Amino acid sequence: MKTEPKTLSGFMELYPNEQIAFDNIKNIIIDTYKKYGFYPLDTPIIEYSEVLLAKAGGETEKQIYRFEKGDNDLSLRFDLTVPLAKYVAKRCNELVFPFKRYQVGKVFRGERPQKGRFREFYQCDIDVIGDEELSLKYDSELVNVIYDIFNKLNIGEFKVRINNRKILGGFFESLNLKDKITDILRIVDKLEKIGKDNVIEELKNLEIDENNINKIIDFISIKGTNDAIIDTLKNDYCDNEMFNLGVSELESVIRDIESRRIPTKNYEIDLTIARGLDYYTGTVYETSLVDYPGIGSVCSGGRYENLAEYYTDKKLPGVGLSIGLTRLFYQLLESNIIKIENVSSSDVMILPMCDNYDYIYKVNNVLKEKNIKVNICYLDKGFKQKMKYANRMNNKYVIIIGEDEVNNNTVVLKNMISGNQITMSYNELVTAKEMILD
Amino acid sequence: MKTEPKTLSGFMELYPNEQIAFDNIKNIIIDTYKKYGFYPLDTPIIEYSEVLLAKAGGETEKQIYRFEKGDNDLSLRFDLTVPLAKYVAKRCNELVFPFKRYQVGKVFRGERPQKGRFREFYQCDIDVIGDEELSLKYDSELVNVIYDIFNKLNIGEFKVRINNRKILGGFFESLNLKDKITDILRIVDKLEKIGKDNVIEELKNLEIDENNINKIIDFISIKGTNDAIIDTLKNDYCDNEMFNLGVSELESVIRDIESRRIPTKNYEIDLTIARGLDYYTGTVYETSLVDYPGIGSVCSGGRYENLAEYYTDKKLPGVGLSIGLTRLFYQLLESNIIKIENVSSSDVMILPMCDNYDYIYKVNNVLKEKNIKVNICYLDKGFKQKMKYANRMNNKYVIIIGEDEVNNNTVVLKNMISGNQITMSYNELVTAKEMILD
Repeated sequence: MKTEPKTLSGFMELYPNEQIAFDNIKNIIIDTYKKYGFYPLDTPIIEYSEVLLAKAGGETEKQIYRFEKGDNDLSLRFDLTVPLAKYVAKRCNELVFPFKRYQVGKVFRGERPQKGRFREFYQCDIDVIGDEELSLKYDSELVNVIYDIFNKLNIGEFKVRINNRKILGGFFESLNLKDKITDILRIVDKLEKIGKDNVIEELKNLEIDENNINKIIDFISIKGTNDAIIDTLKNDYCDNEMFNLGVSELESVIRDIESRRIPTKNYEIDLTIARGLDYYTGTVYETSLVDYPGIGSVCSGGRYENLAEYYTDKKLPGVGLSIGLTRLFYQLLESNIIKIENVSSSDVMILPMCDNYDYIYKVNNVLKEKNIKVNICYLDKGFKQKMKYANRMNNKYVIIIGEDEVNNNTVVLKNMISGNQITMSYNELVTAKEMILD
Repeated sequence: MKTEPKTLSGFMELYPNEQIAFDNIKNIIIDTYKKYGFYPLDTPIIEYSEVLLAKAGGETEKQIYRFEKGDNDLSLRFDLTVPLAKYVAKRCNELVFPFKRYQVGKVFRGERPQKGRFREFYQCDIDVIGDEELSLKYDSELVNVIYDIFNKLNIGEFKVRINNRKILGGFFESLNLKDKITDILRIVDKLEKIGKDNVIEELKNLEIDENNINKIIDFISIKGTNDAIIDTLKNDYCDNEMFNLGVSELESVIRDIESRRIPTKNYEIDLTIARGLDYYTGTVYETSLVDYPGIGSVCSGGRYENLAEYYTDKKLPGVGLSIGLTRLFYQLLESNIIKIENVSSSDVMILPMCDNYDYIYKVNNVLKEKNIKVNICYLDKGFKQKMKYANRMNNKYVIIIGEDEVNNNTVVLKNMISGNQITMSYNELVTAKEMILD
């Protein structure tokens, strides 16, 4: 009796060429994070439930993978923020602040499985944590990071939409709706998804009077250039301290983004952005692919007041962002934004047509020194079969070495696509890199 | 009430500069794997218990992290070989064989926690899987991979010790001890750890007669150059088919390693190497750090007859190796083989001494284009405090930009170690890379 080799649903497992495409995206993200001087961080996948769930509740708690092992109540991490909070709280006397870290790793949520939803997925996070205070310039730095990543990914037009939670909070406070802020924000956050009418309906259900609903709708309908929006908000729009602090913060962030020379088409103020989570307290961002609005935000984040309040009295404000890579990759494939090509795992394949492996390996070693990825075809078969294997392995180039080549100290380099082939001397091989890695 | 931010024992969590050192090693391993044309693979951390434990038993099963979620009986992977077997069995009609894959990921074993033992640890595996057959040249290719990695890691002298299980198996078969092979191999495998006398004692406990014990001890005492050992084994040492097939395989592998020009000091035949696992059927390797024998094998592997027999009837022979990176890193630190330096997460830190961020970001952008990792000090403090921050962040270079620099289109580049500083023009910045990345 054989066991069926099945994989759990909601768990991504890719074919080799898909995996190469996935890793390419992951590497662009990591390389960009590094370029901004973020430290790498790697925390355990399993933590004490008590630590991981210090703050959680409701939906999060229900989705958690939680189990006992020995005497320990354990859980799998469901995000990378809580482990960061634990990490920083534990080491706050040793770390140098502002502390910038990136972490790319799998997190686990036992959601109801459905198309495009994953129970195990990669998050790619960066956060900057300050000790008591943190410059607003980091808020714009993160927009620069997003810009660099999506520019490099080359998956079409994208836009970072920016808001500030203090503007929203202060505005609703001025309407005496402070106790309903969380609910209102949750509803406003759904504007794009459910439409204005449904938002109005849901606001009515909160027993908000029509006058206030009109003001709310007016407010979230403010549109225009970034300058125009800031002008509207600054011009005595709302007599509330928090509101005006938010406007001033937003203006600073926008001005700083301008200084960074990020193209104006790639960012805009959007007063409807609130982010579902209630721990953001300042700048919030979402990033959308302009031609694929249905995909939703592909990179979100914001500013929070206190990272680790459940673990320490130390005040640790921060700003961060997260890319849900597994879901993003799935969506890029589903929407045909990227296509999986038949890529090869090597730049060239050597086809030995004789037994002189001293020479074959000598060629191999020269290529490796030049950072060329090489497969050698060890199949004990004829030339045709070896060529077929090179083709199935998607090799664009093969190097053929037979008795003649050994005797003449040469190799035959063949382009599998054009069919062209040239004989080159062993000494020329060191220059073959440009030819092969074109 | 605050929750204590504690991490589970047996779970590695590093300081930022340690993490950089860890990642450097991991990247050398991955880059080498890639250079040999291995495909990347990433399988789920959670699998059906039924799938993961199709073969397991005994100790493995006891150590597993196993739990229920919904109606599913789930387990965390305890190695990367079983998931590979599942993966290949599931896709054997689509994959191209020989299939070469690398996988670097965390695995979980609930071992009794003790110094240097981890319950969550990285394995860095490669395997080559053939369809029905697989060239012996892959066995020597893996030795080349090990050589390249440990050479590049630059952690001192190392030696790959090579044997063939058929030689051991055939030899014990010739002594009519076939039914005790597994037990004998387990005892012989401990030779280095427990010494010859204890091995003899344990063999006696297996009710092996003295004559045979002497033959066993003679056999595992064969020493000398690789050629001398092969000569001894070939010279009618043992009239057993499996034995002689093993000798012939071992000779092929050794000859092929010679062709690859791996220095002779880096590999040797060692007839005592057996590997504990009973699924190896041919070549087996271990790698030891010559000056630190106590560390044991840092990279082990071998040839097996059938990867996925629990999932498919298809015969899939393979050869693979594994580096237990978490344990290796721990041991390198413990033995002072590597030292954690105060590395910086960036190549240079910009210290803004004026408010002209248009210029500051312009400088930043030029550096980023040159792949220089840049941190900007946004602290709203004086020069001394900013220099102190750059120092604490271990930056070797800082770029100072004040009003003068903006007006003259220059920057001041300061070496924090020598204290030397030069003023360079903005246009010279593009050439600063060599200076900074020295």
